[in-house]
Amino acid sequence: MSGERLIYLPLGGAGEIGMNCYVYGYGKPDQERLIVVDLGVTFPDMDTTPGVDLILPDISWLVERRDRIEAVVITHAHEDHVGAVGHLYNKLGAPILARTFTANIARRKLDEHGIPKDVVQTVSPYPEMLDLGPFKMGFLPVSHSIPESAGLVIDSPAGRIVHTGDFKIDETPVVGDPFDRDLWAEVSKSGVKALVCDSTNVFSIAEGRSEASIAYEIEALMGEMKGMVVATTFASNIARLKTLAESASRAGRSVCLLGRAMRRMIEAALETGILTDFPKVVSPEDAKSIPRENLFLLVTGSQGERRAASAQLANGKYMGLTLKEGDTFLFSSKTIPGNERGVIRIMNQLSEKGVDVIDDHGGRYHVSGHANRPDLEEMHRIVNPQILVPMHGEHRHLREHAKIADSKGLQGVVAVNGMMIDLTGNEPRVAEYIETGRTYLDGSVKIGAMDGIVRDRIRMALNGHVLVTLIIDEDGSPLGEPWCEIMGLPEVGTSNAPLQDFLENDLGQFLMRASDKTLIDDATLEKELRTITRRTAQSEIGKKPEVTVIISRLA
Amino acid sequence: MSGERLIYLPLGGAGEIGMNCYVYGYGKPDQERLIVVDLGVTFPDMDTTPGVDLILPDISWLVERRDRIEAVVITHAHEDHVGAVGHLYNKLGAPILARTFTANIARRKLDEHGIPKDVVQTVSPYPEMLDLGPFKMGFLPVSHSIPESAGLVIDSPAGRIVHTGDFKIDETPVVGDPFDRDLWAEVSKSGVKALVCDSTNVFSIAEGRSEASIAYEIEALMGEMKGMVVATTFASNIARLKTLAESASRAGRSVCLLGRAMRRMIEAALETGILTDFPKVVSPEDAKSIPRENLFLLVTGSQGERRAASAQLANGKYMGLTLKEGDTFLFSSKTIPGNERGVIRIMNQLSEKGVDVIDDHGGRYHVSGHANRPDLEEMHRIVNPQILVPMHGEHRHLREHAKIADSKGLQGVVAVNGMMIDLTGNEPRVAEYIETGRTYLDGSVKIGAMDGIVRDRIRMALNGHVLVTLIIDEDGSPLGEPWCEIMGLPEVGTSNAPLQDFLENDLGQFLMRASDKTLIDDATLEKELRTITRRTAQSEIGKKPEVTVIISRLA
Repeated sequence: MSGERLIYLPLGGAGEIGMNCYVYGYGKPDQERLIVVDLGVTFPDMDTTPGVDLILPDISWLVERRDRIEAVVITHAHEDHVGAVGHLYNKLGAPILARTFTANIARRKLDEHGIPKDVVQTVSPYPEMLDLGPFKMGFLPVSHSIPESAGLVIDSPAGRIVHTGDFKIDETPVVGDPFDRDLWAEVSKSGVKALVCDSTNVFSIAEGRSEASIAYEIEALMGEMKGMVVATTFASNIARLKTLAESASRAGRSVCLLGRAMRRMIEAALETGILTDFPKVVSPEDAKSIPRENLFLLVTGSQGERRAASAQLANGKYMGLTLKEGDTFLFSSKTIPGNERGVIRIMNQLSEKGVDVIDDHGGRYHVSGHANRPDLEEMHRIVNPQILVPMHGEHRHLREHAKIADSKGLQGVVAVNGMMIDLTGNEPRVAEYIETGRTYLDGSVKIGAMDGIVRDRIRMALNGHVLVTLIIDEDGSPLGEPWCEIMGLPEVGTSNAPLQDFLENDLGQFLMRASDKTLIDDATLEKELRTITRRTAQSEIGKKPEVTVIISRLA
Repeated sequence: MSGERLIYLPLGGAGEIGMNCYVYGYGKPDQERLIVVDLGVTFPDMDTTPGVDLILPDISWLVERRDRIEAVVITHAHEDHVGAVGHLYNKLGAPILARTFTANIARRKLDEHGIPKDVVQTVSPYPEMLDLGPFKMGFLPVSHSIPESAGLVIDSPAGRIVHTGDFKIDETPVVGDPFDRDLWAEVSKSGVKALVCDSTNVFSIAEGRSEASIAYEIEALMGEMKGMVVATTFASNIARLKTLAESASRAGRSVCLLGRAMRRMIEAALETGILTDFPKVVSPEDAKSIPRENLFLLVTGSQGERRAASAQLANGKYMGLTLKEGDTFLFSSKTIPGNERGVIRIMNQLSEKGVDVIDDHGGRYHVSGHANRPDLEEMHRIVNPQILVPMHGEHRHLREHAKIADSKGLQGVVAVNGMMIDLTGNEPRVAEYIETGRTYLDGSVKIGAMDGIVRDRIRMALNGHVLVTLIIDEDGSPLGEPWCEIMGLPEVGTSNAPLQDFLENDLGQFLMRASDKTLIDDATLEKELRTITRRTAQSEIGKKPEVTVIISRLA
């Protein structure tokens, strides 16, 4: 082996659902040539990341080794796999490889950042194998909830790795590649060192269901509905869009797409030949003059996103279109954990308008894009690897998946973000722990998750903010009284007098008694003013606010 | 009828799940004598109510009519029905009526506010009927997920109302009253004008299941588990606590209760005779010396609450007890929509420790306390009212429930918070719209939901906060430069220079050119400084922050 090693290092997606980014390397320690698999994003929430626009993996480790990166490989065009390419490409500079549809989406993202589209290379699927330094790599078509998803076969001098990407076993996916058992078996027959495998649905114990299985249900439903019909699903689920639009069309309805993502995805699918026969769509402008019983809206916002078409329609109006009593709204989607409040808010707003809401009815109008536990076990059987590395999942998913592997006689290894695994020998071992984390896109700036900026926002939201200003004159004496402004706090406390007056009074009292030594030292003075402010607020309003003290000294 | 009327007015709980508060009245318009049913709370979240401690119904309407209130009736001891009694009793002053267990809990809450316990009167259930002004009222025992829940039979000169309270149809509830079909039929046989009925589970189409049905499953599970076993459920579900503790005890484990609510509920159940034979419990101190395979912890925090015992155990340690590999943690509970993130965080922390997590497994280890749709329909059949008023539910629940009523030939009426319904005639009609809302308990102060305080907190959390201070000298000229402090914003923007410098520079430039007319007017000056700050921030960091300007004028 001459001291060379094969490593696997997740930088995102292992210990969370979303923000996928995995690294494979081969070579002498600290000289490995690298392949990056996926550059995804995850989405902020008010609980932990208020005000943040997007969450990207922290790729500092890669940036320091950018000269060693052979390629960035994108398995499929979901945001949690491709969403960061535009934001991070310039830091890596390596060519981006993807299949046709994924490449189309990746180029659109790069274009928004003014990056030339030709950094993305469209690749053909297996049996074509690409030479990437010490690796040979092929794209294995696989079924998922977006067209042209790919697993990867990665050959290194230390053996073959099969990386599933996100997948399900679906032989009738409506659009895109059916799962090809023979192909996966062929790739695996010469022996696989490690299967790096999607874990998202490991807790779903039911048999997986095909995308085609819900087409009939949707068709039947579409035939029954009166008034205007609106449906929402993930914009990237081209098969679902096709099923929904075609069944609406057959029911005599014109199809109108609302939401930028929805239009963009259909556009990409048509451009790349994924879709050939999507029903003709009408513009929102034209839709307004179509009788509502002949209209079907296919809209973004299945997760209750506040600015999406679904939320705006529920809230009142979108592109001149409004919903009313007798209309129907179908969620052909599942609510991702954490998004319940937003989705429920929309459902209630629709209910208030008299719109009938139909949810997925326990799976009648939606199927998942990920392999359930029985399908994961089938994948294990097909590939029959020496080692199973659970990938894409929270800790509980990875652990459960590794337990399944162990129970089947495979070596399961739980590798979370930052845990570099050496796969060279017969047993996987932890080679190193890399510092990883999250980078926040905040407005136009990238900030670190640990910079304290978001922590300060959360503190202001929980505790309110008091500003104390004080002017010290040329002689070092306070000029007048300190001045307080409050934000996010009650104006009147339990004494029924203005909080501001109480604060200014207590601060004024302190200053009258303060020694010259205190007054001369900004740090001490600031600390004292802050402490008094918090103490007075606690007694008046039962809360200790954040306090910013500004001391101006006249020269 | 001599111009008298029978009214129903929800002030909380109708259009939401939680914060129940319903008013019944009888008399001449604006002179009705009133009964208040339930005084509940709901819980804040970071999305809409950061920093708030508790949410109470806005009872201004009642406070203005406090001399007309005959009684405050509490149907059962869940927080969303009894939680506000301590906070609001003094504003109403009317006697509180409840059955024994509920009265015990209500008195504890009043005691915390220094209110004498004797304002709560313990009442016996039907057939005892209380005289409350123009009403006669009786408490109808009903099965729910807490002992001694009650529906109400309310007789007025305009007819009989049956108010279900929260309920399920459970003939074997383990602890507390089994559902007594004959009792409800007897009460209904002389004719019921209106059934005011729980709607929480209207979308659950499966047959309801009894609390007793999971006892066997829990018993079986408890026999299998190794290591320390921890279970969490709602502290108020005494039946579940009993099932869990007894099965653990039979499996040779000592029972330890962790969390104040858990201990308090068991205490109340023992005091009131609801529980007679709960296993002996050990203190956390003693638990530490018990071998882990002989220990069972029953803990608060099934909803992922950050400060509860479950979260603290998952995070590290609670009362000297720690979890480790080989232990098991059972969620004998369902996650309430909106609490998913918190629960999942705990599950992952436990997974990281190697603790096996068992959730309700699709109902194996948990049953709901509310009537599913088939049981609601059974209640409709038993009571056979003239009018059905869906109660306790979001808009979508109330609407669906009213639709069921309509389909069965009952008159269903969707009445949301603030909608006063006149039930006197043959058809319900909207008598008036009352302004209702929410009151936030924020530290020690009650604030209005519309006061703008929480809105400001949310804005600071989303946008950050910039403080601008400026001193104007005796001549009306700026003294030195304006000074900026930032909080919750990146220190360095896209130009790679400190944001603070950019802001101070742009503000300084403006001041140099500002006219005397501008400088003399605080409002204009403040507006200009705010605008410039926001514009500069937008260009440097892509975000428009909240801005507070403080102008000090030297006299």
